Amino acid sequence: MKIVKIPSKLSSLSRRMKEKGKRIGFVPTMGYLHEGHLSLIKRARKENEIVVVSIFVNPTQFGPREDFKKYPRNLKQDIRLSKEAGSDIIFYPSVGSMYPKGCSTYAETEGLSSFMCGLSRPAHFKGVTTICTKLFNIVRPDIAYFGQKDYQQALIIKRLASDLNMDLKIKILPIIREASGLAMSSRNNYLTLSQRNKAAILYQSLKMAKALIMSGEKSASKVKSAIRRMILKEKGFRIDYITVADPHTLKETKHISSKVLIALAAWLGKTRLIDNIIISLGRKKC
Amino acid sequence: MKIVKIPSKLSSLSRRMKEKGKRIGFVPTMGYLHEGHLSLIKRARKENEIVVVSIFVNPTQFGPREDFKKYPRNLKQDIRLSKEAGSDIIFYPSVGSMYPKGCSTYAETEGLSSFMCGLSRPAHFKGVTTICTKLFNIVRPDIAYFGQKDYQQALIIKRLASDLNMDLKIKILPIIREASGLAMSSRNNYLTLSQRNKAAILYQSLKMAKALIMSGEKSASKVKSAIRRMILKEKGFRIDYITVADPHTLKETKHISSKVLIALAAWLGKTRLIDNIIISLGRKKC
Repeated sequence: MKIVKIPSKLSSLSRRMKEKGKRIGFVPTMGYLHEGHLSLIKRARKENEIVVVSIFVNPTQFGPREDFKKYPRNLKQDIRLSKEAGSDIIFYPSVGSMYPKGCSTYAETEGLSSFMCGLSRPAHFKGVTTICTKLFNIVRPDIAYFGQKDYQQALIIKRLASDLNMDLKIKILPIIREASGLAMSSRNNYLTLSQRNKAAILYQSLKMAKALIMSGEKSASKVKSAIRRMILKEKGFRIDYITVADPHTLKETKHISSKVLIALAAWLGKTRLIDNIIISLGRKKC
Repeated sequence: MKIVKIPSKLSSLSRRMKEKGKRIGFVPTMGYLHEGHLSLIKRARKENEIVVVSIFVNPTQFGPREDFKKYPRNLKQDIRLSKEAGSDIIFYPSVGSMYPKGCSTYAETEGLSSFMCGLSRPAHFKGVTTICTKLFNIVRPDIAYFGQKDYQQALIIKRLASDLNMDLKIKILPIIREASGLAMSSRNNYLTLSQRNKAAILYQSLKMAKALIMSGEKSASKVKSAIRRMILKEKGFRIDYITVADPHTLKETKHISSKVLIALAAWLGKTRLIDNIIISLGRKKC
């Protein structure tokens, strides 16, 4: 396995690989890898000749009062885990090499970024789409893999790739959960043991919502209220948003029919957690 | 010579060409080709195995009160001229295929676009950088060619390509002028014969400014005043801007030393004309 730190070096390398017709799978990460990331790397391994994993805590997707500095990092462990999961190349650039002095261009997807996490993290997705554009140009992947945990992010990146005529496929793979049901996230590392136990309520509330809908509930506001009540029974939570929305447009649904996304973000102490579930109802009556 | 209209078809074609290691030269145009464009195509022909010319009047770089609808078009002549100049592929997409419904992503370069034409055409460069990003992704050029007439545009695209880690070289080729000195532009087509004669004063004023500077004038404001006076002696002009600036940053210069860009935009009747000159002074005394 190769570790490349210089963007222009990886660009030359990927250029040569594409000239040989190699199929490149790409897993962009901010490191501190967990089973969620590893599921993406393993899938990339199955579907491509070359697997590139990037490890880059991207400053432009953090707000000024967010956790860029304290975001967990463990390069040594990340190298070991990516290697075991089957990656060929780790791209581990410095902030200075990705954003050299004078860098002043961004890529931005409007619309989809105005909902959900976009409301409480205003410049977040602009940072995400910019870094993904840069990474895609350097890595030249045929397929890039994202986790459904960051559903809005993955949807925005699909839109980005399509809108800017990037020749790559975006695959969204299922959320990997801890035994308790808590969605895996590098930020779970911030939680105390007691918080980690409490945090399981988020997924439980989504499963409860699914049961409610499957049993016939059509009112999105009733579903959201039920989720809210269930979470707030646990002490220490502050809800950022709960949404029942169209999974393609992210627009809020009032009356639930066919396929819906239920997504939420909540603060537990100083840690912001997100989770979501997509529910497909049977075919509607004509 | 091939004419391709569907973006995904050209993308597949360029992908295959790159897999064969072909060197692609690209000349993006809005059509209505003149000697300026042809000089770019001829240079691309010399330096590449494949030459792609795009002809696309890009709506997103026109302001709401600008000349998108009346911008001159002549596909038949453009095809003939590009073929004669040596192009292999003409890319002639529809607006709907480049901006399908739901398209909501743009690429934007800040800083450089806040000067000169950016002031009077606020969304112009955002449209330019977005369409160039899209075209570059479709065409996958090794080198893209731009004319110095649109100096600010070319500089912004250099910045765009570098900032977003695009693996291509941007070449800026000299302005091609009519016998009178008027910089060639598709928009010259809007001018009456008498306006076309008058318009030659723009380049004459730049040459006068050069002579003034070469003879020792160091004050940018004096140079600008001299240009303004010379142009306004002709009736019918309204000056948009005259700038004496650093050719890398586009920041206004007060005291002229080493290398400067003198650029201007002026309305002659309903036609907006631009021109520029770069002046290199000898090495400064230490």
